[in-house]
Amino acid sequence: MKSVLLIGTGGVGTIAGLSLTLGGQANVTAVVRSAYDRVICEGYKISSPDHGNHSGWRPYRVVRTIDEAVNSETPVVYDYVVVSLKALPDVYCIEEMITPAVKLSHTTIVLIQNGIGIEEPLKKAYPYNVVLSGVSMIGCQNVGAVVSQFEKDRLIVGAFLPESAPEATNQSAHAIAKEFTEIYGTQFAEYTENITFYRWRKLVYNATINPICALTLLDTGRCHLSGLSKNLTFPAMQEVIAIAAAHNHIFPDDIADSMLSSDDGLYYRPSMMLDVVYNRPFELEAILGNTIKAAQSKGISCPTLSLLYTLLKGVLWRVKETQGMVQAPEEGVKWAAYS
Amino acid sequence: MKSVLLIGTGGVGTIAGLSLTLGGQANVTAVVRSAYDRVICEGYKISSPDHGNHSGWRPYRVVRTIDEAVNSETPVVYDYVVVSLKALPDVYCIEEMITPAVKLSHTTIVLIQNGIGIEEPLKKAYPYNVVLSGVSMIGCQNVGAVVSQFEKDRLIVGAFLPESAPEATNQSAHAIAKEFTEIYGTQFAEYTENITFYRWRKLVYNATINPICALTLLDTGRCHLSGLSKNLTFPAMQEVIAIAAAHNHIFPDDIADSMLSSDDGLYYRPSMMLDVVYNRPFELEAILGNTIKAAQSKGISCPTLSLLYTLLKGVLWRVKETQGMVQAPEEGVKWAAYS
Repeated sequence: MKSVLLIGTGGVGTIAGLSLTLGGQANVTAVVRSAYDRVICEGYKISSPDHGNHSGWRPYRVVRTIDEAVNSETPVVYDYVVVSLKALPDVYCIEEMITPAVKLSHTTIVLIQNGIGIEEPLKKAYPYNVVLSGVSMIGCQNVGAVVSQFEKDRLIVGAFLPESAPEATNQSAHAIAKEFTEIYGTQFAEYTENITFYRWRKLVYNATINPICALTLLDTGRCHLSGLSKNLTFPAMQEVIAIAAAHNHIFPDDIADSMLSSDDGLYYRPSMMLDVVYNRPFELEAILGNTIKAAQSKGISCPTLSLLYTLLKGVLWRVKETQGMVQAPEEGVKWAAYS
Repeated sequence: MKSVLLIGTGGVGTIAGLSLTLGGQANVTAVVRSAYDRVICEGYKISSPDHGNHSGWRPYRVVRTIDEAVNSETPVVYDYVVVSLKALPDVYCIEEMITPAVKLSHTTIVLIQNGIGIEEPLKKAYPYNVVLSGVSMIGCQNVGAVVSQFEKDRLIVGAFLPESAPEATNQSAHAIAKEFTEIYGTQFAEYTENITFYRWRKLVYNATINPICALTLLDTGRCHLSGLSKNLTFPAMQEVIAIAAAHNHIFPDDIADSMLSSDDGLYYRPSMMLDVVYNRPFELEAILGNTIKAAQSKGISCPTLSLLYTLLKGVLWRVKETQGMVQAPEEGVKWAAYS
C-alpha cells in the first residue's frame, strides 16, 4: 500500500482522496481544518457520478495539521503528498508548509491546482524529489463536508521536469507519474508527457471566464446574455491562445468557441467569482499574474488580461482587508505617500 | 418672480432648489416621488456650508408628477425646467418626460447632470427653446429628505449652442444663461461661454474614478492604497485627456494629479459606486459610452476606457435584472442563440 498525505480537502481534493482510496492501493491521510469535527463524527456525504454516492465516508486517517500527520506514535513516511489547496502564494507558502511531510529523495509531490508556473517553487525547494503536476477537469464543490460532483472526474497527470534535469531522472519521474494515475484509477486519471500543454489549455477558460465573472459578479450564463462573452471573454481568450502559442502550445482553431460553449445553458458561478462573493482570497497570481509574466517573457501584448489583472488586484486588496491581512490608515493622510 | 420646475431632487437638485429659492427671484415647484409624504409633512432637513442649515425647508410647491406641476387650478407656465435627474437614457427619456412643462419658445431647459453629449437630444426635441447646460462641482447627498452638503456649491452654467444656430439666437441664449446664474446666486453659480470644456474637465474624474470604484467596489482611498490609482486610474485619465484634446479642450499639464489628489485623505464612495452597491442603474452611457463615441469620432484609441465600459455594461445588466428590467431565460438554452 502507498501512503498518501492529502492537503486541501475542497471538492477536488476530497474526490481525489476517495478515488485513491477506492482503488485499493493507497492509505489516505487527510488534513482537514474547519470541517474536522464533522468529518470525525459523521464523515463525508458524497454524491459522485464516477465514484458513487457515499454517506459517512472517511479517509484512512483524518488529522488537523501536517505535523499531526507526521508525528503519530509510529511515524509515517509518505510516498505521495497530494496538494489540492488553492494556489495563494501571497497568503501561504506551500513549499514551507509541506516540509515535515516530505522525505528527501522519496516523497513524490503532486500538485492538483489551477494556473501555470506553480511547480517551479516546489522543484526548487525539493530538487531531489519528484514533482507531479495534475490538471483536474472535474466540476465539484464541498460545502461543510457535503461533496457534490457535477462534471466527470478527469485528472491529467504528468511529471514536472526542469530543463536541467538529467535524462535518467526524467525517466523515473515519468514512471512515477504513470504509477500515480494507476493508483488514482486509469478510468479517471490519464498520464501525459506534456502536462504544461493541459495547464495552458485550461487557462483559456480560467484566465478569462473566471476573472470576468469575478469582476462583474455575473455567472457564465449572464455573461453571455449581457454580451460580455462576445465583446470581452472571446477577445481575452485570443490573448491567452497567443501567449500559449508563443510558448509552443498550439490549440485547435475552435478552442475559444468550445470553451465558451462548455457552459451552454448553465448559470455557472466559477470558483474565482464564488471566492469574491464569499470574501475569500482567490488565485489571481497563479491564473492571471503568471500568464501575464509568461506573455512579457515572450514580448506578447495582452492588454485585456493586464487590465483584468489590475482591477482584480484591487478586489483582492478589498478581500484581504476584510480578512485583516491588510489595513487602511486613518482618514486625513495624503495618498501620494502611499503610491 | 421666475417660475422654476425642478425635476430630480437628489442632493444636487435639492440644493439647487434651495439656492434658487433663497435668491428671492424664483418660485420653485419640485417634483418629488419617493420622499413626497415626508417632504409634505416635515420638509427637508438640510446642512449646507453655503446655504445654511435648515430644518423643515420646503420648496414653493411640491408635486408628485410633472403633470400635476402643470395642471394646477391656475395652469403654470414655467420659465425654467431644471433637470437634475441622473442621465439614464436606457431607463427613461428626459425629452419626452418634460414635454408637458415646456412651453414653445418660452421655457428654458437647464440640465444639471453628469457626462457629455447629453444636451443634443434636448435641443433636437425643443429647437425653439434655450437649452442651458450646468456642471455642478458640489459634493452632497440626499438620503430620505435629509440633505448633507460636504463640498462647496459651485455650479458652472453655459448655453448649449448647436453649430447651426443663428448668431442672434446665440446672443439670447448667452443672456439667459447669465440670468440663470443671477437667479441661482452669483456667489455659487458662474457663467461660461464654453460649458463643454467644463463637462470634459469633470469627465477626467467621472469617466475614470467613478467606473473603477464601481467595478472594484473600492472607495477612492482604497484605490490609492491598493495601487489602482497609479496603475489604472492615472493611465485612464490620460485617455480622457487625449480625447478631450482631440475635441479642442486642452487642460493644464497637472490635471490628472490634481484630480487624483482632490480625494486626498478621504475614503470617498463616488456616485456610480454607490449606485452599484445599492443596485441602482448608473450613468454609464452619459459618462463612458459618450466619451468612447467621442474618441471614435476622432480616431483616438482608448482601450482602458473601452474595457471598463464593457465590464460595466455587464454590471448594469445585472442591476437591471434585479430591477426586473431584463430577464434571463430558463436554464438549458444554447447561449449561441443570444450572442
